[in-house]
Amino acid sequence: MNEFNLIEKYFNWGKLNCDALGVGDDCALISIDSGYQLATSVDTLIENVHFPRDTSPADIAYKALSVNLSDLAAMGAIPKYFTLALTLPEFDKHWLESFSTSLKSLAKKYQIDLLGGDTTKGSLSITINVTGIVPHNKALLRSSAKVDDIIFVSNTIGDAALAWHQIQQGEQPNQRLLTHFNRPEPQIKLGQSLAGIANACIDISDGLEQDLNHILKHSKVGAKINLNNIPLSQSVAAYVKKTDDWCLPLAGGDDYQLCFTIAPNKIELIQVLKKELDIQLSAIGTITKDLDFKRLGEFDQKCSAYQHF
Amino acid sequence: MNEFNLIEKYFNWGKLNCDALGVGDDCALISIDSGYQLATSVDTLIENVHFPRDTSPADIAYKALSVNLSDLAAMGAIPKYFTLALTLPEFDKHWLESFSTSLKSLAKKYQIDLLGGDTTKGSLSITINVTGIVPHNKALLRSSAKVDDIIFVSNTIGDAALAWHQIQQGEQPNQRLLTHFNRPEPQIKLGQSLAGIANACIDISDGLEQDLNHILKHSKVGAKINLNNIPLSQSVAAYVKKTDDWCLPLAGGDDYQLCFTIAPNKIELIQVLKKELDIQLSAIGTITKDLDFKRLGEFDQKCSAYQHF
Repeated sequence: MNEFNLIEKYFNWGKLNCDALGVGDDCALISIDSGYQLATSVDTLIENVHFPRDTSPADIAYKALSVNLSDLAAMGAIPKYFTLALTLPEFDKHWLESFSTSLKSLAKKYQIDLLGGDTTKGSLSITINVTGIVPHNKALLRSSAKVDDIIFVSNTIGDAALAWHQIQQGEQPNQRLLTHFNRPEPQIKLGQSLAGIANACIDISDGLEQDLNHILKHSKVGAKINLNNIPLSQSVAAYVKKTDDWCLPLAGGDDYQLCFTIAPNKIELIQVLKKELDIQLSAIGTITKDLDFKRLGEFDQKCSAYQHF
Repeated sequence: MNEFNLIEKYFNWGKLNCDALGVGDDCALISIDSGYQLATSVDTLIENVHFPRDTSPADIAYKALSVNLSDLAAMGAIPKYFTLALTLPEFDKHWLESFSTSLKSLAKKYQIDLLGGDTTKGSLSITINVTGIVPHNKALLRSSAKVDDIIFVSNTIGDAALAWHQIQQGEQPNQRLLTHFNRPEPQIKLGQSLAGIANACIDISDGLEQDLNHILKHSKVGAKINLNNIPLSQSVAAYVKKTDDWCLPLAGGDDYQLCFTIAPNKIELIQVLKKELDIQLSAIGTITKDLDFKRLGEFDQKCSAYQHF
């Protein structure tokens, strides 16, 4: 099967949501409403780096698009379109069908169109470039945290890291942890709701502490967080109690929850959002003028962050 | 060196041409003037598939961006920004410096900004996603060739394919052929000049005949081309004379010249363009109502096109 048949068969999904033309031309052409800015981001997933070798193609597709959507969520953007660069070791019909079906399903859920791609032969690698739109000057940035802001985290953290830790130990994670690891849910609605409310926002991909520190560095502020307020699932809480390894939730990464800061006088809006979105939002600390990063609680080891090289 | 230092050191090039913000945030934010559509395209280059293992990092960077710019050229678009997903087997300071310097230089030449990226560890692979803008309804498409249009090709074709053929044979291509292979020049100015003049356009990446056939299929027309009018360099002409292997220029690919069709009554504009851009533009055939593709000349073998799988 040549590249054109492959794209036509597996990645031409028919009617588009956005005002676009030209899947199958040299470029895709897209019209954007005035009053919006584009938000764009790219992420690559590689076998044995970002997912274990035996991960199902459906899970790989889900995670590849989801982690990119998470970057749009962190900006408060509305997903519009994405491109896919897929490198495969061989042509495998069943793999492609399963990958394509899962990708299409997630794309449909978040109304994002696949508008272009490239398929090549080589080690398995998936690069997705997502583009969304956000009303002018409403994007959530890392650089706008203010002193005395309250720091929040959505849902729980450490679940994906615990799943990965158990897999590496030869254990079988429970279904809930596996879902967090293989199919993280991008916080698109939360991000859009926070636009115009939160001062700063980031998605937790590299670990809560490292990502929060990006906010601090870009905003030229410090923070103190309280370990007792870090939202943990029962599994992760049990793991931390047993091992005292706080670094797993604090630096494990792969959470794709949002960490955001909000002025104290807007705290009531958080209660409204919790109910509206049926989501857990936990205040874990405050932004300080003092540039240091401080943890309150009984754990003072420095956690080493994941490094790509 | 962690990923953030790597990006800061090698890929943060300072002042941007386009109205954008946020290299280093979750997404880049870009403002687009009204009255334009976006044109976007993605291409991956893989070692030993798209370039030989010993290709210099400067040449790899040049080609990776150039082949993507060529897709913008084929639409008549103005380059605006790109993202880079770079997968490297190891952290190599000299390699990165050379890659980054070459990429920056080409980006500057075509005034396109690097607005985001991802670096991962794995087999060498470069995925670039370019985005340009084109005035509403002025984009050059594959689907608008009209019966009796004259088919043109820019410059010469087959040079990169001959270089690659010689490398595979253990021969050393001359400098001119090597430049065509390693540093193809995207026909950005030509593309922009053709917007509103040409009926259909494509860039020749997979081979003249295969790419021309994309125009025919999308436009629901046929074509006849005359082999005697195919523009060949002296090296390629000598090769064809010696071997009678017309498939090398017709199907070799990697040319990144433009193939476009234009109404007969606009032919004088081509003469103007030739002078203005100091470029070779050769009429190689005509678009026909008859859906067949016909070659006139003394070569009737079917050329098999390059297939990725």
